Amino acid sequence: MAKLDEFNGFFNPKIVAFYGASNMLQKFGSIHLTNLLSAGFQGKVIPIHPKEDEILGFKAYKNIKDVPDHVDLVVMAINPNLIINFLEDCGHKGVKHVIILSGGFLEVGNKEAQNKMKEVAEKYKIKIMGPNCSGEVVTPSINITHVPWPPRKGGVSIISQSGTYAVQPLIAINTKIGMGVSKIISVGNEVNTDLVDYLEALEEDDETTSIGIYFEAVRRGKEFIELVNRINKKKPIVIIPIGQTEAGSRSAKSHTAAITSPGYVIDSICEQTGAIRVRNSIDMLNLLNAFDSIPLPKGNRVAILTLGGGPGTLMSDLFESNGMKVPLLSKDLQEELKPWMPDTASTINPIDLTYSDDMQNFLNVLPEILLKSDEIDALIFYGLMGTEYFKNLVDVPDYMKDHDSIITMKNFGEMMEDFFIALFDEIIEFKEKYKKPIILTCYNTREEKFVAYLQDRGIPVYYPEEGVWTLIRMWQYSKFLQSINK
Amino acid sequence: MAKLDEFNGFFNPKIVAFYGASNMLQKFGSIHLTNLLSAGFQGKVIPIHPKEDEILGFKAYKNIKDVPDHVDLVVMAINPNLIINFLEDCGHKGVKHVIILSGGFLEVGNKEAQNKMKEVAEKYKIKIMGPNCSGEVVTPSINITHVPWPPRKGGVSIISQSGTYAVQPLIAINTKIGMGVSKIISVGNEVNTDLVDYLEALEEDDETTSIGIYFEAVRRGKEFIELVNRINKKKPIVIIPIGQTEAGSRSAKSHTAAITSPGYVIDSICEQTGAIRVRNSIDMLNLLNAFDSIPLPKGNRVAILTLGGGPGTLMSDLFESNGMKVPLLSKDLQEELKPWMPDTASTINPIDLTYSDDMQNFLNVLPEILLKSDEIDALIFYGLMGTEYFKNLVDVPDYMKDHDSIITMKNFGEMMEDFFIALFDEIIEFKEKYKKPIILTCYNTREEKFVAYLQDRGIPVYYPEEGVWTLIRMWQYSKFLQSINK
Repeated sequence: MAKLDEFNGFFNPKIVAFYGASNMLQKFGSIHLTNLLSAGFQGKVIPIHPKEDEILGFKAYKNIKDVPDHVDLVVMAINPNLIINFLEDCGHKGVKHVIILSGGFLEVGNKEAQNKMKEVAEKYKIKIMGPNCSGEVVTPSINITHVPWPPRKGGVSIISQSGTYAVQPLIAINTKIGMGVSKIISVGNEVNTDLVDYLEALEEDDETTSIGIYFEAVRRGKEFIELVNRINKKKPIVIIPIGQTEAGSRSAKSHTAAITSPGYVIDSICEQTGAIRVRNSIDMLNLLNAFDSIPLPKGNRVAILTLGGGPGTLMSDLFESNGMKVPLLSKDLQEELKPWMPDTASTINPIDLTYSDDMQNFLNVLPEILLKSDEIDALIFYGLMGTEYFKNLVDVPDYMKDHDSIITMKNFGEMMEDFFIALFDEIIEFKEKYKKPIILTCYNTREEKFVAYLQDRGIPVYYPEEGVWTLIRMWQYSKFLQSINK
Repeated sequence: MAKLDEFNGFFNPKIVAFYGASNMLQKFGSIHLTNLLSAGFQGKVIPIHPKEDEILGFKAYKNIKDVPDHVDLVVMAINPNLIINFLEDCGHKGVKHVIILSGGFLEVGNKEAQNKMKEVAEKYKIKIMGPNCSGEVVTPSINITHVPWPPRKGGVSIISQSGTYAVQPLIAINTKIGMGVSKIISVGNEVNTDLVDYLEALEEDDETTSIGIYFEAVRRGKEFIELVNRINKKKPIVIIPIGQTEAGSRSAKSHTAAITSPGYVIDSICEQTGAIRVRNSIDMLNLLNAFDSIPLPKGNRVAILTLGGGPGTLMSDLFESNGMKVPLLSKDLQEELKPWMPDTASTINPIDLTYSDDMQNFLNVLPEILLKSDEIDALIFYGLMGTEYFKNLVDVPDYMKDHDSIITMKNFGEMMEDFFIALFDEIIEFKEKYKKPIILTCYNTREEKFVAYLQDRGIPVYYPEEGVWTLIRMWQYSKFLQSINK
């Protein structure tokens, strides 16, 4: 655990000092400090401030050298001109880990300042995350970013060479995906710790099950490829390259001082290593979430269980056009399904119930028959009405509100909540029991609390097309693992 | 307006009778009736029921022939065996428009029943929507579907050969896109009105500005192509084909009795006519929404105005790899932008503010400079924090809640709401003033009320990648129009 130990000050600090936090909450440093506390951090925070004695209720020190305790981690969000001196102070104090959020270095052409920073850091053996970065998240209780939406604990870790893409997942995860996260690391200008270092740490990290990379530049190409090659055999790596075209590269250069690598380099790296390239950031999050929460498909045969023909057809097309099969089920299996389906339903595959209000059959009985058969390797659902549906249904004009039938339906809707939860709990169990991937799809969002219930318990819920692409990529990765283990 | 007049009973009924509504709200017919009333329907509803005298508070009749009024539209959600007789009754009563939601006809192989239905309909000159369909939406006040989320009034109309895809947009629109809709039509088995008929009607319909088609089958191929060719020159048509592969086709056949056409047929139709093919249903809705709400780009030059480098780079790559340009701005234009940007910001393009808390510059001053220049044809933003951000920021541990700074920030957050709204109103005006497409992107959803505010007023707010693809497709359509108008 050599590398993980080296980074302990980043991943497991007990005492964190802040340069740049003040009694004005709108200041960047203050936001990072409060976000850390709001995330449930149980350690100690120590503001460093030239004038104030107290900041946001915490005793402040004029200089880090005055702090009586040992400091595990220092966060700096200050004028870049002040950083070198403060870094010297930190060195004297014996600080070994510093996150520098401030920009104003190589990314704006200030090579001299960045070199000086590197020099000081080396003198005192300080590891720097940044400069010009968006900080880090380490679940369950560290959020040193400016975005106040820490995710739940899980196995996905992300390393981002883009500061924005280090923190935007926090919004998307909170409002759309409900993913479980272990660590998010914004590497910034990589003055003395880089993408390769953090990858090495995540390789050793038992809490990380899958890794996403927002990739702008190869700084240590050979090491990077070797590492991706080795890690990807144990933990899937998903890469989204940004900065391939003239304008993209112009933009990337201006903000992280990197020489960007064209997309085909990433294609070639992925081909060599089996890592997965995606082109869309939501695709990446969906895929990482699935890797972390459901088993890999052992083969390419998918059962589609749907409440509507259209989505079944659309999903079939996508699967079959991209290397997976939606196989016709055997006569025997069809016979087994039939008693639990409406007469008008289709037992071939997609298994299309057309419409059914028997949620127990749809969510438990039929899925279990399919999952235990040896004819399919994965199950995808379409159709999840949920309780918002019932709530909207009884949102009738005033003159109807007292009608028996409306009241009955309202009670029914409330009763359904418990009933649905019980059905969902079964699905969650199926995942363990049959060790096959299960994805639910619908056009609802996390506003529908059933979506959130499932997502927060490790059953991905996506739009149909997203669910299909996630499974297709999981199968590609599974096939890759099979090919190297032959 | 020949065709639109013919369909007046569907699109503008004053008196609607329901077969299948009862005092049990969970019955399909009851749900459709209440959804119609909840949508704000101001006409009269008349339940037809063999036993009850009153249904959901409305006087019920044993037979449609007993109804004293003229009936404009009849909705049937009943056992398919009863339909032919009831259709005869409707014929005697002089009803000319019937929506048959019930399945059990050609889609399950019951050709005889469907032919009989057609025969009766022809005898009485009744137009049938369906059978085996999901009904219709006509904004602002008609929702005869089972989904209780009628959208706001706008210019997008959708014809769907998939029942599910006729109603799923209602969920996605409500929870994600906030699109304005004119009509949604679920054609079902198309017994005597089909896709081509409804397209003809939408061509004449002034309220429809863009048309989406969930496409499973060419029933009248030649007419369809001619019509798409003609309409697409005036109103953009977006097509999503479903049912191309073996499994997809197997599925489609079992649910609408259609012979599906392979994807390449649709590709070829789109190539001939300039209609736009998409592969993802959310892409289709995003695009239709944009066609309805923002001007077409007159050229391919996009300005990217961003609060984060990563999304700027990612969007640049996508634009430049797909036929659009993110041009380097002229020295003059860069000089004009500079005073309104932080020192560390980039004035090339993407125009990357890195981070700025001056929302007036970001949302009003810089956009106006860009929009009024002749160097760009479209503007896309990344970055929209909104008020949920401030709310979460002050959601601090209890021991901090009373701190001055937290209270100040809380007040600031509330004050910001009005301030943001004023900035957004300017953006909405820019759209009219400069007649260039404006798209905002972020990773927030409609839970963030600023997203909803903009979306509901005709400024699309998407994820960055979605915004890019929407603009790329709008440019493709614009280029097509330019090519035929030369």
